[in-house]
Amino acid sequence: MSSIDRRDFLKGGAGAAMALSGISPNILMGQDDRTVRIGIIGVGGRGRSLLRLLLRRGDTVVNAICDINPEAIQRSVDMINEAGAATPTQYLNGDEDFRNLVQRDDLDAVIIATPWLWHTDMAVAGMKAGKAVGVEVPAAVTIQGCWDLVNTSEQTGIPCMIMENVCYRRDVMTVLNMVRQGLFGELIHCQGGYQHDLRGIKFQPGAEFGPGARGEAVWRTHHSITRNGELYPTHGMGPISKCLNINTGNRFETLTSTATKARGLHNYVKAEGGEDHPNADIRFKLGDVVTTVIKCANGETIMLSHDTNLPRPYSLNFRVQGTKGIWMSDNRSVYLEGVSPEPHQWEPFSNYSEQYDHPLWKRHTAESEGAGHGGMDFFVVHAFVESVKRQIPPPIDVYEAASWSVISPLSERSIATGSSPMHFPDFTRGEWSRRVSSFAHTDEY
Amino acid sequence: MSSIDRRDFLKGGAGAAMALSGISPNILMGQDDRTVRIGIIGVGGRGRSLLRLLLRRGDTVVNAICDINPEAIQRSVDMINEAGAATPTQYLNGDEDFRNLVQRDDLDAVIIATPWLWHTDMAVAGMKAGKAVGVEVPAAVTIQGCWDLVNTSEQTGIPCMIMENVCYRRDVMTVLNMVRQGLFGELIHCQGGYQHDLRGIKFQPGAEFGPGARGEAVWRTHHSITRNGELYPTHGMGPISKCLNINTGNRFETLTSTATKARGLHNYVKAEGGEDHPNADIRFKLGDVVTTVIKCANGETIMLSHDTNLPRPYSLNFRVQGTKGIWMSDNRSVYLEGVSPEPHQWEPFSNYSEQYDHPLWKRHTAESEGAGHGGMDFFVVHAFVESVKRQIPPPIDVYEAASWSVISPLSERSIATGSSPMHFPDFTRGEWSRRVSSFAHTDEY
Repeated sequence: MSSIDRRDFLKGGAGAAMALSGISPNILMGQDDRTVRIGIIGVGGRGRSLLRLLLRRGDTVVNAICDINPEAIQRSVDMINEAGAATPTQYLNGDEDFRNLVQRDDLDAVIIATPWLWHTDMAVAGMKAGKAVGVEVPAAVTIQGCWDLVNTSEQTGIPCMIMENVCYRRDVMTVLNMVRQGLFGELIHCQGGYQHDLRGIKFQPGAEFGPGARGEAVWRTHHSITRNGELYPTHGMGPISKCLNINTGNRFETLTSTATKARGLHNYVKAEGGEDHPNADIRFKLGDVVTTVIKCANGETIMLSHDTNLPRPYSLNFRVQGTKGIWMSDNRSVYLEGVSPEPHQWEPFSNYSEQYDHPLWKRHTAESEGAGHGGMDFFVVHAFVESVKRQIPPPIDVYEAASWSVISPLSERSIATGSSPMHFPDFTRGEWSRRVSSFAHTDEY
Repeated sequence: MSSIDRRDFLKGGAGAAMALSGISPNILMGQDDRTVRIGIIGVGGRGRSLLRLLLRRGDTVVNAICDINPEAIQRSVDMINEAGAATPTQYLNGDEDFRNLVQRDDLDAVIIATPWLWHTDMAVAGMKAGKAVGVEVPAAVTIQGCWDLVNTSEQTGIPCMIMENVCYRRDVMTVLNMVRQGLFGELIHCQGGYQHDLRGIKFQPGAEFGPGARGEAVWRTHHSITRNGELYPTHGMGPISKCLNINTGNRFETLTSTATKARGLHNYVKAEGGEDHPNADIRFKLGDVVTTVIKCANGETIMLSHDTNLPRPYSLNFRVQGTKGIWMSDNRSVYLEGVSPEPHQWEPFSNYSEQYDHPLWKRHTAESEGAGHGGMDFFVVHAFVESVKRQIPPPIDVYEAASWSVISPLSERSIATGSSPMHFPDFTRGEWSRRVSSFAHTDEY
């Protein structure tokens, strides 16, 4: 498979709609023996985690890898060799060497797992070179970057999937299944977010970040110095967006964001490095808690909480609420009117997790064991690979990549203007009301 | 005690500051044998609940009651007689008869427990007649109404306490105690709200409301038809405001509000009354879930959730989060960095409820038993009576009555203008940064 059939890959025409809604048998037939040839751009911690999942599959081969860090390259080569596969071609000649990787003619797809600021350029380069793109979150950090992704995908006919793994978390897929079966009635309000104490990740070791630091501290912390907004919306938004059919019958219309003062990172630097540590002079711009409220075209609201600088237990803050009931992740509970045993009383969500376990999870439980983040990483890789192999639109597409990622720059603008409401671009150019969801309607991918 | 000593009652001068911060002994001395003479305006369900608490005390006498409903009057008279007290003078000659009650010269105070739209006029009339006012929540429903309360209180020198009982809920007082002892560090973000399925209260019986219906359905439902906003902010905001020292070193600066579509009430009417019920034609204006985000002068944010039209378990949505830890009511959990046993893991809030039980609760547990709403109603009545008896400013005052109540009209304006940010009036006229909290600093009241 040296090139992807571009027909109906993106546009939501009749053929795509058929593929999207039901997976036409003749599209699937005889395709399972194909091998998808993949290049990975960025083989740090996250890239190698995805690599490991690709190596466990029988239908992929990693022909090329790219990173600016020789150690990351070597560790990846070792992993590939240990898996019994051929040594990949290595691109480690500086920041722009990924452009050489995407030009190879022995790749069907590229997966991008680099620092955020590189995602858009790499995805655009991949699509322009005819490679299906799987890009880590967020896909872009500017409004223009979001449009670049959409425009490039539409102009080239090449898909771009945002690799949002939380869409495949088992509990949220169970909830999606329940939503689709009508258990919550008409959805009214949802919540999500990213509530994760990242202080030990933004500074590593001690109070250090930037060049010479470890892991994501090399690049991620910089965003907390220069930006104030909902910087990491997709983990919380992905599953909610699927429940609310964003871009497939619904869309985000406006948002407001409000940020608290910034205290957590400065305090952490002082605690870890002392009052005189040079990083104690930094003025971090990112408010410790950023609250974003989104209004949807169909009248629902979504509240996102971004909370990464303070001591707190991890939580993605999920809540899905409709006219018949409500699910909340923080207390692992659900209430369904007329179904739950006691009126107005929560019952454990576990009462529903077996009956409404999503078919995808039922089928692939064994394969997902040991995959990252509780198994959900298996599914997001699986979905990407299957969509390339079957030459069908990815179940999380470029419009979602743009719509979810644009929350960050819109949120920054809202905060910078005193929480003024910001209007979402319609990346589908009016198609949102007609487009059909292709996400997880079967147990296939 | 035929009139209240107006000196230092309100203004935060040196004398008031002394009274506020430490309760000067000479103010208290010899005052405990006084009897506070009270008139109650509105003796429906809520008014009689407060009446019952007054009748349990040895330091109050209810000399007058007022209601437009003869049955409510009679039930109240019976309660008073059964308690062995003299029959009160009864004012039941229509909507305006409360004006005659407040003119009596045998009253020190009036308590107002009428439908929301009457609160402000009655409080203003009470203050103008020289009676200390305790008013149920909300104290006003318009911005002008909030100013009317503040202006009247300042012009007359008569206090107006908003009777926000949730300020005295045992768990939130424990948290306040922990906040004041620094366990959460510097506060950053808080949450509150009113998440209470009121459908069975807004319609009673069946799908009925308005004249002829039962209980609050007579008047409360109307607000859901004509208004879209955070209609009931004080239960969630009261305790948060106390934690954040609003109007005593801090203030609300701006808010945004966003409302969902309105589905719950219409669906309920259809379910209870059938498709052809006349109330099925009503277009309810109140969005089912209204999310409000407030920014404070000291940089904290507050998120309020108003959610009264959908099936759901009751929750006031509390969260208090600072640089050292976080409390959340929905999972009854707390996390304090370096204190909680497991890093990044919740522990039960009950681990702290005994050690940090507020002195007020420790002292008055027995007296609060059987009082409404889990005992907290005892404390709000106690605080009002004690502040009148001691001739000191009430611990929840007219500035809080205005600042909390104004959230509703500001929220309505924000929603009506696409979630535009609204600026809070500074009801303290610049005094907020110098004023001192008098709320629950001792075990007295």
